[in-house]
Amino acid sequence: MSTTTGQVIRCKAAVAWEAGKPLVIEEVEVAPPQKMEVRIKILFTSLCHTDVYFWEAKGQNPVFPRILGHEAGGVVESVGEGVTDLQPGDHVLPVFTGECKECAHCKSEESNMCDLLRINTDRGVMLHDQKSRFSINGKPIFHFVGTSTFSEYTVVHVGCLAKINPLAPLDKVCVLSCGISTGLGATLNVAKPKKGSSVAVFGLGAVGLAAAEGARISGASRIIGVDLNANRFELAKKFGVTEFVNPKDYKKPVQEVIAEMTNGGVDRSVECTGHIDAMISAFECVHDGWGVAVLVGVPHKDAVFKTNPMNLLNERTLKGTFFGNYKPRSDIPSVVEKYMNKELEVEKFITHEVPFSEINKAFDLMLKGEGLQGAATVRILCVCFSSLLFAVLNLDCYPLKILSLRCIIRMDA
Amino acid sequence: MSTTTGQVIRCKAAVAWEAGKPLVIEEVEVAPPQKMEVRIKILFTSLCHTDVYFWEAKGQNPVFPRILGHEAGGVVESVGEGVTDLQPGDHVLPVFTGECKECAHCKSEESNMCDLLRINTDRGVMLHDQKSRFSINGKPIFHFVGTSTFSEYTVVHVGCLAKINPLAPLDKVCVLSCGISTGLGATLNVAKPKKGSSVAVFGLGAVGLAAAEGARISGASRIIGVDLNANRFELAKKFGVTEFVNPKDYKKPVQEVIAEMTNGGVDRSVECTGHIDAMISAFECVHDGWGVAVLVGVPHKDAVFKTNPMNLLNERTLKGTFFGNYKPRSDIPSVVEKYMNKELEVEKFITHEVPFSEINKAFDLMLKGEGLQGAATVRILCVCFSSLLFAVLNLDCYPLKILSLRCIIRMDA
Ligand SMILES: [Zn+2]
Ligand SMILES: [Zn+2]
Ligand SMILES: [Zn+2]
Ligand SMILES: [Zn+2]
Repeated sequence: MSTTTGQVIRCKAAVAWEAGKPLVIEEVEVAPPQKMEVRIKILFTSLCHTDVYFWEAKGQNPVFPRILGHEAGGVVESVGEGVTDLQPGDHVLPVFTGECKECAHCKSEESNMCDLLRINTDRGVMLHDQKSRFSINGKPIFHFVGTSTFSEYTVVHVGCLAKINPLAPLDKVCVLSCGISTGLGATLNVAKPKKGSSVAVFGLGAVGLAAAEGARISGASRIIGVDLNANRFELAKKFGVTEFVNPKDYKKPVQEVIAEMTNGGVDRSVECTGHIDAMISAFECVHDGWGVAVLVGVPHKDAVFKTNPMNLLNERTLKGTFFGNYKPRSDIPSVVEKYMNKELEVEKFITHEVPFSEINKAFDLMLKGEGLQGAATVRILCVCFSSLLFAVLNLDCYPLKILSLRCIIRMDA
Repeated sequence: MSTTTGQVIRCKAAVAWEAGKPLVIEEVEVAPPQKMEVRIKILFTSLCHTDVYFWEAKGQNPVFPRILGHEAGGVVESVGEGVTDLQPGDHVLPVFTGECKECAHCKSEESNMCDLLRINTDRGVMLHDQKSRFSINGKPIFHFVGTSTFSEYTVVHVGCLAKINPLAPLDKVCVLSCGISTGLGATLNVAKPKKGSSVAVFGLGAVGLAAAEGARISGASRIIGVDLNANRFELAKKFGVTEFVNPKDYKKPVQEVIAEMTNGGVDRSVECTGHIDAMISAFECVHDGWGVAVLVGVPHKDAVFKTNPMNLLNERTLKGTFFGNYKPRSDIPSVVEKYMNKELEVEKFITHEVPFSEINKAFDLMLKGEGLQGAATVRILCVCFSSLLFAVLNLDCYPLKILSLRCIIRMDA
């Protein structure tokens, strides 16, 4: 048992005091974990677009002051009452959505949409007592999606923590707690392409590239990347993408272009942009008889998915997925193992690293990404799960031109 | 070898000379089977709504004179060049769509939409030489969907014949060559409900009742029948339907009614009406996280399937099916075995029998079905594959009020 067990921990955290204002590294007090909670020491976190989105708070419910951050890797410091699955020293990835193991969704083999711990972006407090575990001079600082990883210590519900192989390097596998698993799982768990098949990936951001990585791992022989930004094509080759289609280069709908390239359509498609037109194209570009289209990105809440029903009746399948259909506790450890077995390549998703003290630089990199773009450092758009929020929050899609890299933030530096 | 091999056979056939005019039993000449063709003696046929639809020819391309009929059972009389799978004496079910075993669809485990032999309602001739095998005094009489079973003998492409257990009673299993397999397969092959699950069936016609039968066979614990005609509910109980919803009884959308009945939605749904609103309801009534909706019926060609993409992203699946995803030659024999093993009950789909000489009575029964309706003889609507034609032919859906029974027509009487 560590000497801090049961004590308030004073540590550094990056606090978002106001929408759009630079984060401030503050000394915060982190209360001990309560029932079914775990306090963890964050070693590495990365910045995902969702963090930026809620930091900017242009439209959605502003919850400030708040500690953002949801892609991270850490070590258990202490556990609260009722926690039996984890103990101090365990290596964990916090996840923005959880797995209570009790509800109908958790009991279903097919769902990961836990009733109790499903993502909630409005809640800034812990479920147990509707209070925050963070404070500065007694004033509460709010949580973010149950993770708040921009802090040296954070408190997370046990259901939102994946216990992983302690040999896995946390500075790499921390990115598996959000967007990369979302894209990878969309392909491996939902689209399930067979060896030698063709897969189209719409949107070559981090999620789309992770979907392509899933297709590469599955042994797909043709991986067609679709993006409006041709700068992404060179980078995408590293992720197994074999061909590129820029819809801007054609007058006909992209689904027709793809059908012509593939003798009637691809075997599988994965949609990672969240644009309704791309969603429809991704569905209509799969082959009749056996094609499966998987939707990952979510458009504006007023968007309507429309198609001629014959496209369905000709034996196509349309499915949606959330966090790649991975159950956070049950399945994410095996994604880490895929990395450990060298099946999954994680390094190529990581292009920058900054010390915690320079966390605002990570925001700058993401926001001004496009300006920094060079031949060797094409930015990766992270749609991650943020896309899921547009529908909930009634906002427009985040402009696609804002590009970002996965930037690892070292907490100890 | 029969004495008729290689000879023209003169036999009786019911000829549709003109749209909407009673069929006339004529003596026709049936030419020997050519390359990859088989001549069969039809012992029993049944009337399906598609026959009536093309007989009425209100809108689609009229092809007359023609021999209709596509649900039947018979015995091989002789085979043409290249046919190795069948020989005289084999019991077969002709099917309106085929399986060449060579094309990409036939080679795919997932598709039954054969490129060569997929249903074609406009073609009135054989593929081999673009000629008819039927004639009267040298004048050709056209084929219908490659089957033309309203004749004592007919010629069918070998790819459209399922070789079945010779012990199976043809007067029963003949109905498995169209609508019943369509509905049954939609549930067993596509929706795949687990034991103890809940299934909603939209449309309690022959196809919908066969879908319910599939749910019953799968061990579903709740089978919710949805129909605008409450008269069908009593009959539907025989097919395992446990609960009924008549959308007319509610002000709210039927998907909301079903979600309330089932704590969030059914596990599976099967749509057999071909009405676009029912298709949308059938999709939206399945549970998030794991629900699967299967579309069987096809609406008007201008119909558009519309839904909020969040319904998909919350991990619902939407699939369409054609002929229950059964490959005619590979899979239909096993459907017959399900009947032989007493797993599948076929008798309850059959309510009338007429001799061939009174085939027009079967048409009357179907067209005037509603008038004949009594407590004990609720009519079954057959949407069968005819629904698939509306889209192709640019016609309105057939009015649902026309009800019909499965009526077996004995060719030897
Ligand atoms: Zn994220
Ligand atoms: Zn749960
Ligand atoms: Zn074929
Ligand atoms: Zn039929």
